[in-house]
Amino acid sequence: MRKPKIVVLGAGYGGLMTVTRLQKQLSVNDADITLINKNDYHYETTWLHEASAGTLHHDRVRYSISDVINRSKVDFLQATVEDIKTDAKKVITDQGEVEYDYLVFALGGESETFGIQGLKEYAFTISNVNSARQIREHIEYQFATYKNEEEKKDERLSIVVGGAGFTGIEFLGELGNRIPELCHEYDIDRQKVRLVCVEASPMILPGFDPELVKYARAKLEQRGVEFHLGTPIKEANETGVLIAKGEDEVEEIKAGTIVWAAGVRGSSIIEKAGIENMRARVKVEKDLRAPGHNNIFVVGDSSLMINEEINRPYPPTAQIAMQQGETCASNIVALLHGKEELEEFTPDLKGTVCSLGEDDAIGLVFGKKLTGSQASFMKKMVDNRALYMVGGPSLVFKKGKFKFF
Amino acid sequence: MRKPKIVVLGAGYGGLMTVTRLQKQLSVNDADITLINKNDYHYETTWLHEASAGTLHHDRVRYSISDVINRSKVDFLQATVEDIKTDAKKVITDQGEVEYDYLVFALGGESETFGIQGLKEYAFTISNVNSARQIREHIEYQFATYKNEEEKKDERLSIVVGGAGFTGIEFLGELGNRIPELCHEYDIDRQKVRLVCVEASPMILPGFDPELVKYARAKLEQRGVEFHLGTPIKEANETGVLIAKGEDEVEEIKAGTIVWAAGVRGSSIIEKAGIENMRARVKVEKDLRAPGHNNIFVVGDSSLMINEEINRPYPPTAQIAMQQGETCASNIVALLHGKEELEEFTPDLKGTVCSLGEDDAIGLVFGKKLTGSQASFMKKMVDNRALYMVGGPSLVFKKGKFKFF
Repeated sequence: MRKPKIVVLGAGYGGLMTVTRLQKQLSVNDADITLINKNDYHYETTWLHEASAGTLHHDRVRYSISDVINRSKVDFLQATVEDIKTDAKKVITDQGEVEYDYLVFALGGESETFGIQGLKEYAFTISNVNSARQIREHIEYQFATYKNEEEKKDERLSIVVGGAGFTGIEFLGELGNRIPELCHEYDIDRQKVRLVCVEASPMILPGFDPELVKYARAKLEQRGVEFHLGTPIKEANETGVLIAKGEDEVEEIKAGTIVWAAGVRGSSIIEKAGIENMRARVKVEKDLRAPGHNNIFVVGDSSLMINEEINRPYPPTAQIAMQQGETCASNIVALLHGKEELEEFTPDLKGTVCSLGEDDAIGLVFGKKLTGSQASFMKKMVDNRALYMVGGPSLVFKKGKFKFF
Repeated sequence: MRKPKIVVLGAGYGGLMTVTRLQKQLSVNDADITLINKNDYHYETTWLHEASAGTLHHDRVRYSISDVINRSKVDFLQATVEDIKTDAKKVITDQGEVEYDYLVFALGGESETFGIQGLKEYAFTISNVNSARQIREHIEYQFATYKNEEEKKDERLSIVVGGAGFTGIEFLGELGNRIPELCHEYDIDRQKVRLVCVEASPMILPGFDPELVKYARAKLEQRGVEFHLGTPIKEANETGVLIAKGEDEVEEIKAGTIVWAAGVRGSSIIEKAGIENMRARVKVEKDLRAPGHNNIFVVGDSSLMINEEINRPYPPTAQIAMQQGETCASNIVALLHGKEELEEFTPDLKGTVCSLGEDDAIGLVFGKKLTGSQASFMKKMVDNRALYMVGGPSLVFKKGKFKFF
């Protein structure tokens, strides 16, 4: 009898959790499991702001996929997914076609620039290991160039971060630590460096507890971050950004580095494959399947789920992606066993911690507000927990965040 | 009675040796000694190829001037020299004017591009700490960008070094070590990276022993360096260099990094001050004074001396600059003591060692040919000796080149 083929696309939080749960719950004879990923490593998307700022080496934010999959049960194919033929039940990759009976779509999100002119060309995004390395090196190159150029362009040292959501704020927190180090490395006065955050909405970290938000803003301002809130970016260009001031006016902020950390949309492969979507995200059924596709599950940033309490979508977080992975794996196992009733996914929100750099953070954990080193400790525990969920204690030991005093 | 004012311009090998010798030989009452330098640190020009390649941190190639001068005898002014008014006996700096009775000109050399189109705009030079840091970061940024760009431009990873003299060859030797590290850091195949040396003369290291030259070339070729000898660079531009092939043909070598390591001339301040010169170098008298100026000494790369044995100028080396500093100090002391007969300078050439990267080098030391780790050891001893001459054993201990096994 032909074994059913399960194909998982993407080795992010959602995909990898699905695969590691499947390999626990299925025997070799139950199914053929294939994991397809562009790189041979998983990276911690939620740690990329550290690699981008240069406060954590990029090798610390990734681990080899072969470290966490069971090769006797899972085939790994390093390939880039190009399209999905849902009728023919085939995935098209740059390494050839792969057939599936069950598909788990976990390719994550993509940056969304909302059509703002010049962002694609002139702004970096904190998207993956490659882009994080490039941001780190770009900033460092600006400092090196500044020190060696005859006519000093101070604006070369300015960094504009578009977006005061999680990624933008956490990145600014890391820069608060990194900039003094860079100034020391290149003999540059700290006062020459501007850190500017531009955000269209009137507040930072929308949706977060106001008291904690106030703490975060004050701490970042102390470390030299300027905020321009309620201020959309109108354009990015070679020399910086134009921001809206009042009704018709624009103001120029010159900057050698622009990082766009504001928008996330789903994967463009969703659109290409013709699966029903909203900005490339699939509003999944309660069992995580794509509407109209009883053999396609979507987990992580390309899935869309409404939090009915507030009638707004759940944010695209690692926490939810991992929980989805667990449910997705159970549901595939149930389908293989011929069950018709599948598990409904409900997020179990344990809390959220936003890092503000070394030994500082804000967090709401199990309903409790935390700031400073307590929150920072919790952040590290959250990060370590993600490692634990996928790779057990040995992965925490290899890649975990600890300080040895 | 007014104390005579001795002003030393530049804290390179020649200037710093002059000052440290003067402070030993003169008492506080003998003279006012002022050292003027752009930076508050000295850097080892002969180690800059390592900082440029990124194999040695730039803080290892510099030390604070205050570590080696005696503040009770020497005033240090951090300033950029802009001109010298020899009639008025004044030095013009960006921090004001400084009067002198005796002047030691030791501002070093500048890069010479021989009017080759585009070199000034598109090529880096290994000139100082700032330019070395920029080269290091530029190369690293090219690697980071390559890995993050959608359409890979392989030429981004190519490095063209113009010049196969000492600096060019030593820099290529370091790159031979550094490139594999960078490839590992950015997940890039070593085969994608080209190291190209373009030299107008038909051989590398002109003037060096042919047997050693052959060894050097073979070793560098083994580590992936391509040589284009007898091949002048015609033009540098945004995408690379054009090199001469045969009579009328040119060939393009695309490269993300161009380093010009071929020409050295004297200081443009010499020309500005109207002191008689050849390509900004002063053909000094045997006592190291500038012709027609009995109170101006010129040492180091801005001085020109003919080796009468071969009727060619001595090369601009640290060894000669330091020896000149010693003679220059003695001669100033003699003048202060009213002596008319000054010491004639004769270089004491102990040998030359050219590094080829980690644990490899070629050298001719006291007439003996050395290669490999023996030569490499000698090179480190030469480097340590320079530290010893200026700052004694404590400076060797702080900044010396050792390996602790």
